[in-house]
Amino acid sequence: MTVQPIPEIADIEAAAHRISGFAVRTPLIESPVLNALTGGRILLKAECLQRTGSFKFRGAWNKISQLDAKLHKGGVVAYSSGNHAQGVAAAAQIKGLPALIVMPRDTPLIKQNNTKGYGAEVVLYDRERESREEIARRYTEERQAVLVPPFEDTDIIAGQGTSGLEIAEQAEEAGAKPDAILVSASGGGLTAGIALAAGARLPESAVYTVEPEGFDDYARSLAAGRRVRNARAAGSLCDALMSREPGETTFEINRRRLTSGLVVSDEEVKRAMRFGFETLKLVIEPGGSAALAAVLAGKIETRGRIIVAVISGGNVDRGVFARVLGEAA
Amino acid sequence: MTVQPIPEIADIEAAAHRISGFAVRTPLIESPVLNALTGGRILLKAECLQRTGSFKFRGAWNKISQLDAKLHKGGVVAYSSGNHAQGVAAAAQIKGLPALIVMPRDTPLIKQNNTKGYGAEVVLYDRERESREEIARRYTEERQAVLVPPFEDTDIIAGQGTSGLEIAEQAEEAGAKPDAILVSASGGGLTAGIALAAGARLPESAVYTVEPEGFDDYARSLAAGRRVRNARAAGSLCDALMSREPGETTFEINRRRLTSGLVVSDEEVKRAMRFGFETLKLVIEPGGSAALAAVLAGKIETRGRIIVAVISGGNVDRGVFARVLGEAA
Repeated sequence: MTVQPIPEIADIEAAAHRISGFAVRTPLIESPVLNALTGGRILLKAECLQRTGSFKFRGAWNKISQLDAKLHKGGVVAYSSGNHAQGVAAAAQIKGLPALIVMPRDTPLIKQNNTKGYGAEVVLYDRERESREEIARRYTEERQAVLVPPFEDTDIIAGQGTSGLEIAEQAEEAGAKPDAILVSASGGGLTAGIALAAGARLPESAVYTVEPEGFDDYARSLAAGRRVRNARAAGSLCDALMSREPGETTFEINRRRLTSGLVVSDEEVKRAMRFGFETLKLVIEPGGSAALAAVLAGKIETRGRIIVAVISGGNVDRGVFARVLGEAA
Repeated sequence: MTVQPIPEIADIEAAAHRISGFAVRTPLIESPVLNALTGGRILLKAECLQRTGSFKFRGAWNKISQLDAKLHKGGVVAYSSGNHAQGVAAAAQIKGLPALIVMPRDTPLIKQNNTKGYGAEVVLYDRERESREEIARRYTEERQAVLVPPFEDTDIIAGQGTSGLEIAEQAEEAGAKPDAILVSASGGGLTAGIALAAGARLPESAVYTVEPEGFDDYARSLAAGRRVRNARAAGSLCDALMSREPGETTFEINRRRLTSGLVVSDEEVKRAMRFGFETLKLVIEPGGSAALAAVLAGKIETRGRIIVAVISGGNVDRGVFARVLGEAA
């Protein structure tokens, strides 16, 4: 892989135009209880309410809607831990293209089933032993399909950036100038898209990645000034946030705009999921609650400040959700 | 009790002004999956995202914010199955007034605990054997407190009507003219408020109550043209929708504007709650999902139509929620 062209703000605006009427303009939610708890104003960008239950549909539709269905009868191929899978499958279905998705064997069932529900073919692989990139490449060649990467792609990053444009618009509507924007990071595509949008529209807002313990490649890479890898490839509650290292392109974007990354524990993530259930009335998946977890755990100063926390997804198996709720103190 | 003055649209506008900055302007959510499933456009007014987890804060704050804290040191008293309790407790806390709430002994724990969490004193009673009105009246006299009724009150109805004003504004923003608005009904205060707002702002939208089986007093009262009572006082999964009969004032409003009421079974309610979890990523309490249940169960024609379904609340015990999720087919 090489570094892909970095999207301009005009590319993100074009993506916003493309997704309009297909993606949901997700609300920026404010909870008086959360504000009181933190002493600040916390604005939650509820991407769990996005089509397919995560932000991923934005990038997928931005890319796939631009394909010529006649030229690409082989359809699309993607590898994904589950949310990108659903975004790609739903986008391909709307476009009338076949989709094949390569997913880890330990992907939550809700993500596997939803992906199939959008008409995609699912191929499972082993996170530890097999290379998803290689499997996807093989299928792409066999079928003469188009590969839709999860984050190392100009159109995907521009698509995810539409969430950042909306944050800027909605914060203004709410009379708020965010001091910081917290974004859960795996490969860093959502962070990169939001960082670019914020660079143009909210230049005074600091942007932070939030990652689970043991998968803090972005935090360590930002500190080191170069991309570093995680020791493990599996084992976090946050199934959506276990990418091995930052993307080349996303890191190129994020290192210019971000100063540091935050890290949260599984316990902090569970507390945020319970807060979602009890107080916010939002269903948030583990990885989707990382930014909220950072706020609730005091990983960033909130007193007297305005903080945007992106709730990146809500696709969680009911068994996992019930277990997390049941563990409440 | 006698019929209270019926709010004018100006009263609802004044209420909207009062609650601004205190209540949440809850989003009107649209789900592409739900639209595809129903063949129409379904707009969900997500009052589960309201302060205190239900629409009830609107009316409570509209009433309590107008009290003079110096004149009413005895504070407020209310009887409630749980959501009005939380609305009143939170509003009294903001206003700096003591609150005493009379609640049925079988009220979900989350509602009891949240009510205490807002600083209120809670007194439990037996739904079948005791009169909550009488207990509340006794405390009101003893403490020289102000009684905040759950629905038979001009300010309360006007407050709930602010939800209807927002629906009208947000539907217009979404380029939608609703054919119908479905509102879960217990005493009928939310329906009355929305019916009044819709009468002024969405005169072509039909308004329907939605009730659980066995507690369809509004549906039967609308059909009969006079208020009729339910046989039972307890026993529905929808703990928030078990009022004995329509209010005098709310019925006076609703009978002029509504033609009929819809009825849903507990199974249909559970299916809607699961749909909330799996697809919408919203935590919806049983009573809060009645309108969505009516849509999903085909109780109203949706094909080619625009239907607003009010999600009235999200306060559900985690055990109940987990059990409902676990019962999925």
